[in-house]
Amino acid sequence: MYDIGRGKRAEKAYGLDDVAIVPTKRTRDIDDVDLTWKIDAVTLDFPLIAAPMDSIMSPDTVIEVGRLGGLGVLNLEGLWTRYEDPEPVLTQLAAITDPLAATRKLQQVYSAPIIPELIDRRLGQIRAAGVPFAASLSPKNGRQHAEQVVAAGVDFLVIRGTTVSAQHVSSTTDPLDLKRFIHDLDVPVIVGGCANYHTALHLMRAGAAGILVGFGGGARRATRNVLGIEVPMATALSDAAAARGDYLDESGGRYVAVIADGSIGSSGDIAKAVACGADAAMVGVPFARAVEAPGAGYHWGPEAWHPTLSRGLRVHFDTIGSLEEILVGPSSVADGSMNLVGALKRTLASTGFTDVKSFQKAELVLV
Amino acid sequence: MYDIGRGKRAEKAYGLDDVAIVPTKRTRDIDDVDLTWKIDAVTLDFPLIAAPMDSIMSPDTVIEVGRLGGLGVLNLEGLWTRYEDPEPVLTQLAAITDPLAATRKLQQVYSAPIIPELIDRRLGQIRAAGVPFAASLSPKNGRQHAEQVVAAGVDFLVIRGTTVSAQHVSSTTDPLDLKRFIHDLDVPVIVGGCANYHTALHLMRAGAAGILVGFGGGARRATRNVLGIEVPMATALSDAAAARGDYLDESGGRYVAVIADGSIGSSGDIAKAVACGADAAMVGVPFARAVEAPGAGYHWGPEAWHPTLSRGLRVHFDTIGSLEEILVGPSSVADGSMNLVGALKRTLASTGFTDVKSFQKAELVLV
Amino acid sequence: MYDIGRGKRAEKAYGLDDVAIVPTKRTRDIDDVDLTWKIDAVTLDFPLIAAPMDSIMSPDTVIEVGRLGGLGVLNLEGLWTRYEDPEPVLTQLAAITDPLAATRKLQQVYSAPIIPELIDRRLGQIRAAGVPFAASLSPKNGRQHAEQVVAAGVDFLVIRGTTVSAQHVSSTTDPLDLKRFIHDLDVPVIVGGCANYHTALHLMRAGAAGILVGFGGGARRATRNVLGIEVPMATALSDAAAARGDYLDESGGRYVAVIADGSIGSSGDIAKAVACGADAAMVGVPFARAVEAPGAGYHWGPEAWHPTLSRGLRVHFDTIGSLEEILVGPSSVADGSMNLVGALKRTLASTGFTDVKSFQKAELVLV
Amino acid sequence: MYDIGRGKRAEKAYGLDDVAIVPTKRTRDIDDVDLTWKIDAVTLDFPLIAAPMDSIMSPDTVIEVGRLGGLGVLNLEGLWTRYEDPEPVLTQLAAITDPLAATRKLQQVYSAPIIPELIDRRLGQIRAAGVPFAASLSPKNGRQHAEQVVAAGVDFLVIRGTTVSAQHVSSTTDPLDLKRFIHDLDVPVIVGGCANYHTALHLMRAGAAGILVGFGGGARRATRNVLGIEVPMATALSDAAAARGDYLDESGGRYVAVIADGSIGSSGDIAKAVACGADAAMVGVPFARAVEAPGAGYHWGPEAWHPTLSRGLRVHFDTIGSLEEILVGPSSVADGSMNLVGALKRTLASTGFTDVKSFQKAELVLV
Repeated sequence: MYDIGRGKRAEKAYGLDDVAIVPTKRTRDIDDVDLTWKIDAVTLDFPLIAAPMDSIMSPDTVIEVGRLGGLGVLNLEGLWTRYEDPEPVLTQLAAITDPLAATRKLQQVYSAPIIPELIDRRLGQIRAAGVPFAASLSPKNGRQHAEQVVAAGVDFLVIRGTTVSAQHVSSTTDPLDLKRFIHDLDVPVIVGGCANYHTALHLMRAGAAGILVGFGGGARRATRNVLGIEVPMATALSDAAAARGDYLDESGGRYVAVIADGSIGSSGDIAKAVACGADAAMVGVPFARAVEAPGAGYHWGPEAWHPTLSRGLRVHFDTIGSLEEILVGPSSVADGSMNLVGALKRTLASTGFTDVKSFQKAELVLV
Repeated sequence: MYDIGRGKRAEKAYGLDDVAIVPTKRTRDIDDVDLTWKIDAVTLDFPLIAAPMDSIMSPDTVIEVGRLGGLGVLNLEGLWTRYEDPEPVLTQLAAITDPLAATRKLQQVYSAPIIPELIDRRLGQIRAAGVPFAASLSPKNGRQHAEQVVAAGVDFLVIRGTTVSAQHVSSTTDPLDLKRFIHDLDVPVIVGGCANYHTALHLMRAGAAGILVGFGGGARRATRNVLGIEVPMATALSDAAAARGDYLDESGGRYVAVIADGSIGSSGDIAKAVACGADAAMVGVPFARAVEAPGAGYHWGPEAWHPTLSRGLRVHFDTIGSLEEILVGPSSVADGSMNLVGALKRTLASTGFTDVKSFQKAELVLV
Repeated sequence: MYDIGRGKRAEKAYGLDDVAIVPTKRTRDIDDVDLTWKIDAVTLDFPLIAAPMDSIMSPDTVIEVGRLGGLGVLNLEGLWTRYEDPEPVLTQLAAITDPLAATRKLQQVYSAPIIPELIDRRLGQIRAAGVPFAASLSPKNGRQHAEQVVAAGVDFLVIRGTTVSAQHVSSTTDPLDLKRFIHDLDVPVIVGGCANYHTALHLMRAGAAGILVGFGGGARRATRNVLGIEVPMATALSDAAAARGDYLDESGGRYVAVIADGSIGSSGDIAKAVACGADAAMVGVPFARAVEAPGAGYHWGPEAWHPTLSRGLRVHFDTIGSLEEILVGPSSVADGSMNLVGALKRTLASTGFTDVKSFQKAELVLV
Repeated sequence: MYDIGRGKRAEKAYGLDDVAIVPTKRTRDIDDVDLTWKIDAVTLDFPLIAAPMDSIMSPDTVIEVGRLGGLGVLNLEGLWTRYEDPEPVLTQLAAITDPLAATRKLQQVYSAPIIPELIDRRLGQIRAAGVPFAASLSPKNGRQHAEQVVAAGVDFLVIRGTTVSAQHVSSTTDPLDLKRFIHDLDVPVIVGGCANYHTALHLMRAGAAGILVGFGGGARRATRNVLGIEVPMATALSDAAAARGDYLDESGGRYVAVIADGSIGSSGDIAKAVACGADAAMVGVPFARAVEAPGAGYHWGPEAWHPTLSRGLRVHFDTIGSLEEILVGPSSVADGSMNLVGALKRTLASTGFTDVKSFQKAELVLV
């Protein structure tokens, strides 16, 4: 604890930029590295989840990510459930270059109502492809659409908000009782974002199959400027990993996945997130650079279209390759935005590890 | 304490950029958040005070801020009391783009004498609108115009200088005796800037209703370059909040408002200031972006027009919306410059608080 | 050790930018400074080794560096052993300005096979010049070509990879047994990169004449972005120097050279590297600015042309002078890129030292 | 002490940018502030010395600085003692905009020999003006020209080099014995740069009237890049001030002035230097912005023209006002480059001090 002044103390918290992985005395063959991981009953090829953002995840790209071995998540409160045909809307958005005009247009197009029938149709399309997939709802809409989502055959329901607590207090509404909600549901639930040990532990106790750590959505700087809130990811993951261990003990063996969500811009960040204790990373930015990305070079999250308090910018990224190249290579760029899976394998091999779980024990330094 | 070298030690001080608010395990409904605060006998809707700077506060904008629920402060040593009609002067200033030429023009236009009759007229115009309001004088001119100001019916008199101490020593003049001055006056006094525990405590003992912490006026970098003086705001607020607590005890219950003044550029900064211990924030920059701002895109404080030692730059800001949008939204920008009140409510809700006073206990981390 | 969070601790590691050399109470005549150093049986005029990168080291420039008193290293897996005449390839590369296109071209031209006969021819050309020289192979190709290299009369064989451990574990291949390999070889071996005390010690125990500390190749930022791995050089050198001392003791007097490899951009960095414990520095960037550099203004390392995971950028540098001017001056630039030898002499003289070995004890401060 | 790694420890050192002055509970009238200071038998109006650099100090500007109350120093190894008429040389230099070409031209024009007769003539011109003044020589040329300088009637001889130690060791030449040299001379000597407690103490024991702390000449970044040497000024001054106190005690009352030399870019830096323990500051950059500056917008120090190892850049600055405006105002800029004396007075007044000596005890914070 440091003294901010006579009236306030604070702990130091670290972001992924503050840490680096250091090699050890052993190295491994890259062919010996196995990136598979298990969450609830599902085993996936590598620990990457594509974030539920309209700029990257459409039914088609959710299918493609699943086909490649990852997990795609469709946002059920996005354009695909508000518009019979969202393509013209996406085209209009891609034609706007001014950031302020873009935000206003986002606020407008997302004011269209959610059409429940479209939820069935979009999820049905993905399910028909036979790949693992997930769908997301905000805490506010969780109850309303959850049964419908379960019926559609998703592998996971993701409940994702800027901050989700296991203890939401309201004097006027009847907030979502996460524990009962999760208990009553027939699919495993991934829930977040959360930011510290206690919230993580509470979400685990509420029955989550996985928890999202962080704020998600690329909105870190905006959240800092608008709300003054910030969750340095290295510290948040380390705290959540400690909660996972304590909950494993208190629950007699239930292992809840810790998923980094936000602040993940490169393959190096993914490696650091795991080395800080994550089981997987929910990623947005790298997918926004794919040829197939619905955003056509633009990237935005739900916080960008809030009707009265936009807290995220629509950001432009150059398109660099196919979803396949971005996930499994080959890569001709040296900035960590391509061949995410190959890079993670390389990091493990270079530092002497062969699986994700043991790599959580990799040595870090503060830089 | 850290050793600078063998001959000097220093404490580490933190600015608002060095800290961030972290969520806790509880969240709240935004509709349950109440931002009202009380200073002396006045209750205001939200803890924002518009700084007494000619670029943002005219009689009209003081009224508009009051109407929206905030507190506006008119500088009684600015253009509105030096010119019968300041509009042509403001128009001339807005036409100058070169910074050096602008400073010289400021030094020139502010060399016109203060016309006491204009003080009555400006304050009369605001009082007639029936909103809470305040007026500011420098320590040097406090005695000369104070009675006139009180007679005009202000809610607060603000005595504001770069640094104000309760113990000004002079061999040649008879400095303002703050304690007697405040005691003899019929309106509550807000006084500052101050920067540490002891000065804050002395100003409280002198009878202030509120103290300004910091240097104000957006001049932080200039003050650093010109004078070498800097008051990292997080530490200064934390120290002043400690003084508030100690004074509350020694005075048997008198609560003096601690008001952050300076270094506040965004709604996130306002939230952090409160989390460091502030009761309210005196703000300039966000108002400079209002359509109604008299500066017409330019922003400057009193330190910019000092006749022999300019210590502040006139800065340009893009106009982004109305005073109402800036204060209470809606916002289409994601940088914390709009819907300041909505953003502060959102921060409290997201971190589990429902009122300003308890939010002073929010958890901070060093980032 | 610092707490990253509840589940992870980390040590603080320092780069060369984090430290500076401080003068002491004594100064020396620059003419009294002697920069010679000895590695195995070879004495060299100054502790600079030109890195085995095609952009800087051709047979001609290896000879020129040797003639000037340094040590040049030819990469035996580069263009000079893949092409009968690499000049047209270099010309094509220099004509590409787009970074992505350049990487793709690199990946293509380096996919040509290594022609063993060219190894003999290139090394024969250098040997005929009668200067000290070295050649490098990757760990993967070490065994295949080593005997051929020894027969060609090199002074040192350099085994250089991103990370080299003395303990490479593979389930499918039979990895290089460094200890046996070095023992069986008739030339001294310089091997790396390594990054910490234990790896350094293991490489010394394996019989290395010198160890490379760091990642080399100018790829620090890329390695960080792509792999999340980073080796702050000041800490790595200090750790390796401690291993050198411990190994000297346990081996009864065998002194293994510690060679900084990577992160060395200027003569100031070279001085700092030695002050952190290095015996010499392997340098790339300064040579890329020579008129004679084969890269013709562009600079790249082996990590840039990896077929599926490029981890290094081709970077452009302005040409500033001849190899001779860059190494021994005179210099008309003030950024530490010219007269590297003169600058290092000046640093020793200014801080009271006359030889490289004692300068390893120079006083550092954290800045 | 911090561990850099297993083999090296270092102390943390602070620059002026790392510290800030904080107000106390007392303020003072600016009219009560007295900036006079005494060095040897001379009392000066304010603690600013103009550095011996050809870009700012000619005989004319030395006189003007003296007339305004400061101390100007003429470099006796510069253009004014190498050329009968240096004006055409200065004009040629001012016409070169390319930095590399400028350095080469500097190396060329400064290769002209020093003409002893010109030393007499330049000093005679200044002496005739009847203001306090000083002249500088490098340690190498100190003995050769010293008697001539004394005879010319300077108030101080400045012996100034990048690093000057009281203990220069040479195997080939007979270095300057500072103690005897100073003892035998009939004028007080100011000598430096030095950087730590022990060197400072030795220079004091050698009889210096004042010591220069730092590297001088604006070459901080270049010294870092070229030599790896850096002297964070706040720490160096604090150490030298401690040496001053210890020497005062051991000498039975001899007070040696500690003069900050280098890293001083603004009036805020001057204030911080004093608050770290300096008695005065030797300043270059602010004078380079004067209308009268011989460099005509360009600024360079002796380290820039070193024949084989240039260690300083010629830098361009906009001209902003007369020497008088820069020293004593009025100022229309807010960056600390004008009205240096007024700014320093303001800092003392704002923090409750009335003289330079007591201001050395001002409270600092790390920022």
